[in-house]
Amino acid sequence: MHLARSRTAIAVARNVSNQFAGAARSRASVTKLLTPSAASSGKFSRALSSTSRVLADSPSPSSAPLADATTTPPTGGDGNGNGKKQSRYRAFLQHVGRVTLVTVVGTTGVFYYYTQKDKHPGAQLPFDETKKTLVVLGSGWGASSLLKTIDTEDYNVVVVSPKNYFLFTPLLPSVAVGTISPRSIIQPTRHITRHKKRVVSVVEAEAKEVDPVAKTVTVQDTSEIRGLVTERTIPYDYLVVAVGAEVQTFGIEGVKEHACFMKELHDAEVVQRRFMDCVETAAFPGQSQEEIDRLLHVVVVGGGPTGVELSGELHDFLSEDLRSWYPELASRIRLTLVEALPSVLPMFSKQLIDYTVSTFKEEKIDVKTGTKVKKVKADAVVVEAKDGEKEIPCGLLVWAGGNKGRKVSMDLMAKFPTEQKNPRGISIDDHLRMKGSDGSIFALGDCTFSQYAPTAQVASQQGAYLARVLKQKAKRDALAVEFASLQKEELLQSPNAERKEKIEKIAKQLEKQEKVRPFSYSHQGSLAYIGSDKAIADLPIFNGNLASGGVATFLFWRSAYISTLFSLRNRVLVANDWIKVKLFGRDVSRD
Amino acid sequence: MHLARSRTAIAVARNVSNQFAGAARSRASVTKLLTPSAASSGKFSRALSSTSRVLADSPSPSSAPLADATTTPPTGGDGNGNGKKQSRYRAFLQHVGRVTLVTVVGTTGVFYYYTQKDKHPGAQLPFDETKKTLVVLGSGWGASSLLKTIDTEDYNVVVVSPKNYFLFTPLLPSVAVGTISPRSIIQPTRHITRHKKRVVSVVEAEAKEVDPVAKTVTVQDTSEIRGLVTERTIPYDYLVVAVGAEVQTFGIEGVKEHACFMKELHDAEVVQRRFMDCVETAAFPGQSQEEIDRLLHVVVVGGGPTGVELSGELHDFLSEDLRSWYPELASRIRLTLVEALPSVLPMFSKQLIDYTVSTFKEEKIDVKTGTKVKKVKADAVVVEAKDGEKEIPCGLLVWAGGNKGRKVSMDLMAKFPTEQKNPRGISIDDHLRMKGSDGSIFALGDCTFSQYAPTAQVASQQGAYLARVLKQKAKRDALAVEFASLQKEELLQSPNAERKEKIEKIAKQLEKQEKVRPFSYSHQGSLAYIGSDKAIADLPIFNGNLASGGVATFLFWRSAYISTLFSLRNRVLVANDWIKVKLFGRDVSRD
Repeated sequence: MHLARSRTAIAVARNVSNQFAGAARSRASVTKLLTPSAASSGKFSRALSSTSRVLADSPSPSSAPLADATTTPPTGGDGNGNGKKQSRYRAFLQHVGRVTLVTVVGTTGVFYYYTQKDKHPGAQLPFDETKKTLVVLGSGWGASSLLKTIDTEDYNVVVVSPKNYFLFTPLLPSVAVGTISPRSIIQPTRHITRHKKRVVSVVEAEAKEVDPVAKTVTVQDTSEIRGLVTERTIPYDYLVVAVGAEVQTFGIEGVKEHACFMKELHDAEVVQRRFMDCVETAAFPGQSQEEIDRLLHVVVVGGGPTGVELSGELHDFLSEDLRSWYPELASRIRLTLVEALPSVLPMFSKQLIDYTVSTFKEEKIDVKTGTKVKKVKADAVVVEAKDGEKEIPCGLLVWAGGNKGRKVSMDLMAKFPTEQKNPRGISIDDHLRMKGSDGSIFALGDCTFSQYAPTAQVASQQGAYLARVLKQKAKRDALAVEFASLQKEELLQSPNAERKEKIEKIAKQLEKQEKVRPFSYSHQGSLAYIGSDKAIADLPIFNGNLASGGVATFLFWRSAYISTLFSLRNRVLVANDWIKVKLFGRDVSRD
Repeated sequence: MHLARSRTAIAVARNVSNQFAGAARSRASVTKLLTPSAASSGKFSRALSSTSRVLADSPSPSSAPLADATTTPPTGGDGNGNGKKQSRYRAFLQHVGRVTLVTVVGTTGVFYYYTQKDKHPGAQLPFDETKKTLVVLGSGWGASSLLKTIDTEDYNVVVVSPKNYFLFTPLLPSVAVGTISPRSIIQPTRHITRHKKRVVSVVEAEAKEVDPVAKTVTVQDTSEIRGLVTERTIPYDYLVVAVGAEVQTFGIEGVKEHACFMKELHDAEVVQRRFMDCVETAAFPGQSQEEIDRLLHVVVVGGGPTGVELSGELHDFLSEDLRSWYPELASRIRLTLVEALPSVLPMFSKQLIDYTVSTFKEEKIDVKTGTKVKKVKADAVVVEAKDGEKEIPCGLLVWAGGNKGRKVSMDLMAKFPTEQKNPRGISIDDHLRMKGSDGSIFALGDCTFSQYAPTAQVASQQGAYLARVLKQKAKRDALAVEFASLQKEELLQSPNAERKEKIEKIAKQLEKQEKVRPFSYSHQGSLAYIGSDKAIADLPIFNGNLASGGVATFLFWRSAYISTLFSLRNRVLVANDWIKVKLFGRDVSRD
């Protein structure tokens, strides 16, 4: 392929002046001058090789006679103790050099091999009509984790999602200030499905309606560009609802109209653009001091990890970048974090909450707990605290709190009015089966209501668990088919000891496969970045808990996020972005 | 600062179980076990040092006795000629290792130093009321080049532009397919102005009106977020109009409504999103074959460098990435390049045009020259060629041709109806002065009409030229002031030979400074990327022209673009993006 590319290379010179021709002649004469001396190159190379022998490091008795070494002492050696020290030093340096070289070359090679393998997935098995169809709604944590783990030899899999990619949500606050590029934390769903054994159909569409009786899902292309066919009804044998949730605004006036959110990739980009717009508008000549203060006031609503991390990231952006490029404005930018509960980060231990609050104090982030948002206006937010209602002028308000069920899952719940009564999400049993359904509908992640918090960790573990359950189901189904056919034989044909034994064996296996272990969540800990290269972590350790905060935890936070990222590609891109920001800072362009 | 950050690091363990305490005890006993042997570490280190002496590379007579070497022959040496060869080989490897190490460490250090210096510009001089005010409209090639070169000690500089960044337009087609990240080719205007000696006021606003009599510019904040003050009139002594141009649609029906463009960063992002949307819509289950063919047909209008490069980039995206992720669709994607003129790339030499056309043939890009666009519909384009009118169904149409004056420059031209008659742009003299103005208005780049093509190269050279002219003007103005004051003295006071001599000298200098050299354009060559790692280049060499195309030219194209990029930051980011794409391919997510 590369050969084919270079084959047609052409290089044509035209209108070449005499001057140029002259230059060509003089170059030819230089070549001539060099030619005679080339004859002596043999001699020269011999001389060179003897020198290299002297400089070679192994004092092998036959190859490096002592006399040689004495007549040509190595540079820098003074023949005394110094030489000893120096040679040790040189040996060390050489060793480091060798290790560096081998490491660099080796790592690059292995790395390149893996990336290329990843880039070029091979052919896949086609859909198999004898297999059951598994329809997965969603492409978030739960769905992607399921897709990664599932064995496509057992099922024909169809994925339906309005986004054709997986988004690594925990790093969204970093995208909002430009620490990380938007595309570094997304991974196309096809990068997962194309590496499966069997073809997986990825449909970029919104699931509109589930019919649990007919066992179908109706999907619709709601994107900007639509074809002649925009709606389709897909039949399923098993359905996995992993559609996540949408932002809960609690019906507060003005939130939808004036606030920014922190849910999708687009949201983070909007926050970045609007924030820079506020700064540029404050820099507009003739703006009053009061208006500058309003424009440069950022209010983050929601003291959960997203709100806290966004505040921390905004602080970093301010102290590391805006100070350089907007020196006249940087000191006037103010950050306020508003939380209705009496404390931020309720899922963390007390010390870490205190540590966060004191760090925020140092970072001049105003934390207003026990403060409810009553109304959001274009240029202010109305809040209610113990001391009454107050209007706080602000330039940008980011709403980072609350989950609400999506329409499709709400509609599905309405079809099982007896079993699905909790408006907070789809009620599931401990096998992730939707309560009320015949066992063909599973639900996981943020669209469900269970004993677990709506976090990425839970959804991800649920996805992997469900893949294992489905594998077991497929095995059991295969055994059941075999069992039925053997039993039929037993009925129709003469008795046979071997067959009987087989039937008993399969019956036992079947019994074993019927027992499905319930989902159990293993908490890996909670992490949050709080700005100024500091993070906090609550880690379950043995039967206790290790709470830590600070710069070391920040490094742990980074390595934990890097290792949680979905692919080698994402890992390299995010690490690369961190280095980029260290070197060049964040971009202040308003794109 | 770093100390201050780590100071508050805390690490608290709570609820620690007995198990954990047990583990802590057992660790303590391990430490005890190790302690006694620590006494012998001195002996051990001595033994180690003697080994390292043997392994050390310099056979200095005093430090490495032959006996030592014989008793401990170096690994791999067989005491024969092989040892000689190996030692030579090892020496070579060591040398390479050392060079690698030193290069890596050295380059990293220097690089880091420069990036940090760049990130932290120091304090600047404030505006000086005694200096003249220079207002620059625009932040493109011309304006940015002017800002880079201008001496701010001579002027108070105000930059007005609706974008607060410079955009490296030649790489836009690469952004449109994801070869390069959008933010890699932009550079905030403040990254230029903050490194100037005197403060430069950067106003993110649109210039609405120029009053050449009152010498003022009215600017307006037209962005999403606005403050109480949105309009401002700024007085100028010198005005530089470098506002560029907008897309020329020639009034063709449907272009504005249905086409994508390739002018601003946003345009490239829209093309990327819409193209992936077309692909996903074609992948929607149940789409008819005809509709799939329509959706996967991309029409690029305009056979200039932008259109050609976009076609080439789209081809690469298709062959290098879409084939992997959409194997069922990739072979059906079709690209058509439409050009009204009889040939694409009219500014290139004949052979290169032929080479481009033949390469496009290999790449299966359909080139339709001599074909006019009559109408653009939502799902098709109507074209007229020799063989009559034809409707071509397509999913995406990119309009990459034609420049039209912006309203602000058109309005300004209307104020000099006698001198400004050409509707194609502001007429300028060979000193870049707007014809008809009193010499206080300069214009350059795409908003002007001159003998030069509207290219980045011309605008950039004009910007640098103008900065030199303004420097000369400032010098002359200073001399004129001195001259006037000396002449006044001469009139009022008694004659003085010394003063007279000085007056004569200044008069001579003034005369010299009055002569301003006209702008002369030095063409550096034309370059275009045509896909499949091939580029074409027309380079002026001596008095002739070197036309070359192919893979080698592609490497030249890359290095030329890298060196033309505005800053070290952009250079590194773009090179980094190229490596990223080589490793991981382009992103197929529709964001």
